[in-house]
Amino acid sequence: MKHFDTIAAISTPNGLGAIGVIRVSGKDAISLVNNVFSGDLMKVDGYRMKYGRIIKAGKVLDEVVVGIFRAPNSFTREDVVEISCHGSPFILREVMELLVEQGIRPAEAGEFTQRAFLNGAMDLSQAEAVADLIASSSAASHRLAMNQLRGGISKELSQLRERLLNFVSLIELELDFGEEDVEFADRTQLEALIKEMLSQTGRLISSFQLGNALKQGVPTAIIGKPNAGKSTLLNALLQENRAIVSDIPGTTRDVIEDRMVIEGIEFRLMDTAGVRETTDTIEKEGVHRTLNIAQRSSLIMYIFDLHQESPEEAQAYVNSLQLPSSSRILYVGNKLDLMRMRGMHRGAVPQASTPGKGIILISAKEGSQLDNLKSRMVAEVNSFSEGQGDQALISNVRHLNALKKAHAALEDVERGMASGLSGDLLSIDIRTVLHYVGEITGEISTDEVLGNIFGKFCIGK
Amino acid sequence: MKHFDTIAAISTPNGLGAIGVIRVSGKDAISLVNNVFSGDLMKVDGYRMKYGRIIKAGKVLDEVVVGIFRAPNSFTREDVVEISCHGSPFILREVMELLVEQGIRPAEAGEFTQRAFLNGAMDLSQAEAVADLIASSSAASHRLAMNQLRGGISKELSQLRERLLNFVSLIELELDFGEEDVEFADRTQLEALIKEMLSQTGRLISSFQLGNALKQGVPTAIIGKPNAGKSTLLNALLQENRAIVSDIPGTTRDVIEDRMVIEGIEFRLMDTAGVRETTDTIEKEGVHRTLNIAQRSSLIMYIFDLHQESPEEAQAYVNSLQLPSSSRILYVGNKLDLMRMRGMHRGAVPQASTPGKGIILISAKEGSQLDNLKSRMVAEVNSFSEGQGDQALISNVRHLNALKKAHAALEDVERGMASGLSGDLLSIDIRTVLHYVGEITGEISTDEVLGNIFGKFCIGK
Repeated sequence: MKHFDTIAAISTPNGLGAIGVIRVSGKDAISLVNNVFSGDLMKVDGYRMKYGRIIKAGKVLDEVVVGIFRAPNSFTREDVVEISCHGSPFILREVMELLVEQGIRPAEAGEFTQRAFLNGAMDLSQAEAVADLIASSSAASHRLAMNQLRGGISKELSQLRERLLNFVSLIELELDFGEEDVEFADRTQLEALIKEMLSQTGRLISSFQLGNALKQGVPTAIIGKPNAGKSTLLNALLQENRAIVSDIPGTTRDVIEDRMVIEGIEFRLMDTAGVRETTDTIEKEGVHRTLNIAQRSSLIMYIFDLHQESPEEAQAYVNSLQLPSSSRILYVGNKLDLMRMRGMHRGAVPQASTPGKGIILISAKEGSQLDNLKSRMVAEVNSFSEGQGDQALISNVRHLNALKKAHAALEDVERGMASGLSGDLLSIDIRTVLHYVGEITGEISTDEVLGNIFGKFCIGK
Repeated sequence: MKHFDTIAAISTPNGLGAIGVIRVSGKDAISLVNNVFSGDLMKVDGYRMKYGRIIKAGKVLDEVVVGIFRAPNSFTREDVVEISCHGSPFILREVMELLVEQGIRPAEAGEFTQRAFLNGAMDLSQAEAVADLIASSSAASHRLAMNQLRGGISKELSQLRERLLNFVSLIELELDFGEEDVEFADRTQLEALIKEMLSQTGRLISSFQLGNALKQGVPTAIIGKPNAGKSTLLNALLQENRAIVSDIPGTTRDVIEDRMVIEGIEFRLMDTAGVRETTDTIEKEGVHRTLNIAQRSSLIMYIFDLHQESPEEAQAYVNSLQLPSSSRILYVGNKLDLMRMRGMHRGAVPQASTPGKGIILISAKEGSQLDNLKSRMVAEVNSFSEGQGDQALISNVRHLNALKKAHAALEDVERGMASGLSGDLLSIDIRTVLHYVGEITGEISTDEVLGNIFGKFCIGK
């Protein structure tokens, strides 16, 4: 237990509601709340509630239900009191003031979770998952955070780190024997462990694209020539999901983002005014912008007018954009309604112009075949994670950076072992690996890192 | 118990927060929540909590703390389960959906409180106080709601009603004896009770002005001639309270309301462009508007330029406005700074131009003597309640109307008794009194009345 003073915060969102909860944690939590409570909380067992009144200067401030958690069986591992008040911001403020008068300190952002971490109730990546869980807005981002909260990432990394720590201790023990040329650490086993860790960190690093896309929403660019039906498609997609759409002003000029959730996955649909201009200079600028957006996207939907552009032309045009080879591209042939009406098209519509992936034929105007498009969008995202199975994904830039550094240090170790590097130099590289892996779980942490992480939490958590 | 199906609602305000609570109430509350909970809730005692997981299709939706309340020891008197989730709107929605899949019905606005009322946990005026308590935004409105929640109004009315009910039963019994001319009901005692009820209802009716002012904010008109310093005063008052000021667009055109809290009392300061015009026709319109606002105000601050207008002129002007005799008027002499600077004034500044009430001298520009003005504002509000002591106030228009009707019926009874009205006619008038008094506490209620009252509650309460 590293923290002992008693803190309190309003833990429910601000606003009028039926219930508002104030959470108090610390060694004097129960006795200090007891000072302002009509009943006796001192003998109340953990996980019990008591109905009563909060009294301020002889007057009833509120009728409340108080929940008692006794250390170490609480979120923070300290004594915790949760006061369920009527959900009036005025009452909650008054109760907070009263608690502060009793000597309770208003908690800083994330301070409860920070205590849970410092008191060993969870590791750092789990603590970070608490914030992600609260912010989760789709089934996918929720599952990601819940997996992390339940130790998905850190369990395995911690075990590997533990094993590596044993090796480095043995290697450092060898050094104590100086000239004697002993070898306590089995180099073959060490090599196998390093390989395992390289594979594990490599997999986690490459899981970031999907993890981040699931957490933040899959960046999805809709590109296409003028009048291909881009806007109609966007509107058709969004209309069907009006309830879960929110308009977010583009962070980049000329780009408007709309969010929609399909089968629990959030897509950030990005539209651009890009390739609409006609004169050459502006056209180039348009292509440049489109490229920019497409390159930042995990998924690209190229929409083309079946009546104006053949699938081959569409593919040739997309190829000319020289997108990264990792780009996932969906070809969407639009204006199926016109095709049907005229009973003709400019060429055979191939069902698979990229291997294993057919062109999706839709009518954005009629809104037909959109379900087909949506399942293809979902299938593309799921294919990101092919071979990842149910394994943990990372979605946190801090984790990504630590993993990259750990991975680089692991490669140094591997190279060092191959070239017969001496034990003392090897141990330095291994210590670097331990450091960066430890940063993820918080076995290694600094006040600055912690401040950065918990400062972004909401108050009361 | 009149309701038995199981209902649920998110009871905390919408938004991200550390904690979000879902409340479930009804005969199957515990077993239906148990269906989706990782542990066993069936044997858990009332007022106990259990930590566990909400499971949806084999996956963990959230780690939660579940609180159990067993009938009749709960807010609604039914079995109640409160699920403390992470405060993510997404998670709360998902848990709600899961509960609905179990056959739990989403609660309507105010339905929990309505059940508390229908199951006899509180009377109607107490139930109404729950909504007022949540909406309370100052110490005064909070005290008012808390008093009402704790039975302040209804206790006394219920007792009087009970006694009157005994009398009417006796009178109706007399009627059964037809010609025999018996008198079971002691007419002297009845007369005394009617007098007591007349006085009680009369007092409550007259308490409405204060009660409503404390609940909604004391309507305070600032009036004065052009350049008297009205706006400067308003700004000076508000600046010192910037934190608790909110701009509310005027419901009446040309009127801007600003709210401020002084010593726990909320004032709705109303400014008007009223008397600023110069031509006669517009001047009249201006005076008309000012009058309109002043007449709807509980408190009027007449501000005048000490250098331009003598206190006598100020008073004469206010008298010419022919405000209702009940108006509370504060005379505020402004530009004290100029007075001091020039060392002169146009006449003696009387310390008491209205009996017992001096003119308040301020400098709005310098912001000096504002504390003096503020304590006078508070003193005026407190003087509304002179002689009311700590007695209950009504603040609810529904109560006011019922009390007015009860009061009128009581006067009928009094007149009827004085003129020797027959028992059968007397009993009709008494039944009318019983009806209207019963409406306040809910002993008499209709679905329409209840729908009206609880429909205005927030969901989850």
